[in-house]
Amino acid sequence: MASDNRASKIRIALDAMGGDHGPTVVIPAAELALTRHPDLSFSFYGDEAVIAPLLATRPRLQAVSSVHHTDVAIRMDDKPSHALRYGRKKSSMWLAIDAINKGEADATVSAGNTGALMAMARFCLRTLAEIDRPAIAALWPTLRGESIVLDVGASIGADSNALIDMAVMGAAMARIVLGVERPTVGLLNVGVEEVKGLEMVREAGRILRETSLPDLTYHGFVEGDDLGKGTVDVVVTEGFAGNIALKTAEGTAKQIASYLRSAMSRTLMARIGYLFARGAFQALREKLDPNRVNGGVFLGLNGIVIKSHGGANAEGYAAAIDLAYDMVKQELMTKITESLSFDHRAVMAAASNPDAA
Amino acid sequence: MASDNRASKIRIALDAMGGDHGPTVVIPAAELALTRHPDLSFSFYGDEAVIAPLLATRPRLQAVSSVHHTDVAIRMDDKPSHALRYGRKKSSMWLAIDAINKGEADATVSAGNTGALMAMARFCLRTLAEIDRPAIAALWPTLRGESIVLDVGASIGADSNALIDMAVMGAAMARIVLGVERPTVGLLNVGVEEVKGLEMVREAGRILRETSLPDLTYHGFVEGDDLGKGTVDVVVTEGFAGNIALKTAEGTAKQIASYLRSAMSRTLMARIGYLFARGAFQALREKLDPNRVNGGVFLGLNGIVIKSHGGANAEGYAAAIDLAYDMVKQELMTKITESLSFDHRAVMAAASNPDAA
Repeated sequence: MASDNRASKIRIALDAMGGDHGPTVVIPAAELALTRHPDLSFSFYGDEAVIAPLLATRPRLQAVSSVHHTDVAIRMDDKPSHALRYGRKKSSMWLAIDAINKGEADATVSAGNTGALMAMARFCLRTLAEIDRPAIAALWPTLRGESIVLDVGASIGADSNALIDMAVMGAAMARIVLGVERPTVGLLNVGVEEVKGLEMVREAGRILRETSLPDLTYHGFVEGDDLGKGTVDVVVTEGFAGNIALKTAEGTAKQIASYLRSAMSRTLMARIGYLFARGAFQALREKLDPNRVNGGVFLGLNGIVIKSHGGANAEGYAAAIDLAYDMVKQELMTKITESLSFDHRAVMAAASNPDAA
Repeated sequence: MASDNRASKIRIALDAMGGDHGPTVVIPAAELALTRHPDLSFSFYGDEAVIAPLLATRPRLQAVSSVHHTDVAIRMDDKPSHALRYGRKKSSMWLAIDAINKGEADATVSAGNTGALMAMARFCLRTLAEIDRPAIAALWPTLRGESIVLDVGASIGADSNALIDMAVMGAAMARIVLGVERPTVGLLNVGVEEVKGLEMVREAGRILRETSLPDLTYHGFVEGDDLGKGTVDVVVTEGFAGNIALKTAEGTAKQIASYLRSAMSRTLMARIGYLFARGAFQALREKLDPNRVNGGVFLGLNGIVIKSHGGANAEGYAAAIDLAYDMVKQELMTKITESLSFDHRAVMAAASNPDAA
């Protein structure tokens, strides 16, 4: 690994063919991110015939980019098993991930299909020694700013140990993204009392209460409405409930936006009011724009993989690249590894002592 | 049971002390419901010294009401076990539920604490012979109107059989509330493909696919964002995920309302726009008002118990009484019992034949 190169540049591998728009979004996004972070460099994986012309008109980006041609691209509706079968070692998605393994990239970003991306990332990078189930951490806009919510769909049916690992990894990520020294962590549950909820959540709560982990402050249980309030910095949940919470929130936001649109066009007075308040509505639209906060971080693997929304525009995809940049620059992997090795000893002791509850 | 009395009046037992406001909301709500349904009669359980004066000023309501005094009221933060211990056989909540057992009421409404209400209802009314886990069904406002979502918190960790029972009971309720002959039913999951999600959800999906139940159309899996879209009439989920979905949606709605308020007061232009569009904002506010759609229906018990929001106003509580009225008038219990007895035979056959998948 060329560590001096690494010190000078943050190297991002991009699956240029992933997402609904492919290179027409990925390349302008890289250009945007580069203006914000001049120490970025890029390797693009995908169809050179499409990528090269888009780079040619962007000399500044081209100067820090390499292109790696492949004809194989994973489709958005491919099943993970199918994608692995035909896309392993040759698809743009695989090659972008494998660049980390080869020491040619510090992080990978893809807007390709989540299931295939996670399957390939697990297969190619492997999970960290301490981790059984990787997780996907999402940034969640709240009334107080942003929180980190994990897992939003990778660890279906995760147990209490996996929840504790997520607490530790989510807190490491929060230190970087939110800039807080000791993030607060809550477990998503159906009530705040200790007796409530699923056994695995109660057990994880007990262990987190009893082991004072050095890098986080355990807040206790939080409920679904605490997500939008921003009650804690990190919300931990098993992937099934987390995915449903994420999609329910997205759906509710769209539903209310639709109500608002129809209310504002219903009467002449409302339409006049809309004209006056256009700036305010624009601000609201930006606030609710899924491109503003974009990027699911895969945690628990030997490498940093970021999933962009499939439908993200260039601004949205650039936000995912920014996220990858921050994770590398502020050494997410080191922070996670350090936290995990300490926490695992403390947690083991508590887990083996259930009667202390 | 006085069946002729029953034919002439729909008799609702009201836990007058439940909720944040007690009789000051419950009694005006009963009056409101009575204007809409003159064939209602009420029995109020609680502190007669508070109830009687409120009734005295409402002669029309008083004429169809009886008051049953008790000093004991369940508090909003009581644990279910504690509530059962001190409130059994004497609290307003218990007595209101027990009125069904005694044949003195056709349904019970309470705005008291959900956990205590469910514990008492189970203890007092018992579950139907076919049902292990009762469920709470909520009305969910959607872009197409309303859907029924169950379970939103009673059946934490429910298995595939419980999910199928919920599908059947939710469909019976949908025939009444939504007025559709064969409601569409979806299982809440993290993806729409058959291979996705928790084992119990996949198993329930397999059985529902294979057994063509006569009273519902099985749609397949739905995701969190299908809730707000109204993709199906009935969404079935285990209580943990259902509770998190419900509270996440409520939280997101509040969050966006807060964004909107601050956007509309930020600039002078926005404030002027707000004045013009005041009617539109009022319409939106009504659309999002949790009092508009209020009432969780307990399904799977030997009787109809409706949970009103604790913070509901008189209009909201009246909506819960209306719901109880409809459930009795259109014979929810008969519909459920008929559907369950047929469905159980068909489902048994499918469940015992897992290789057919």
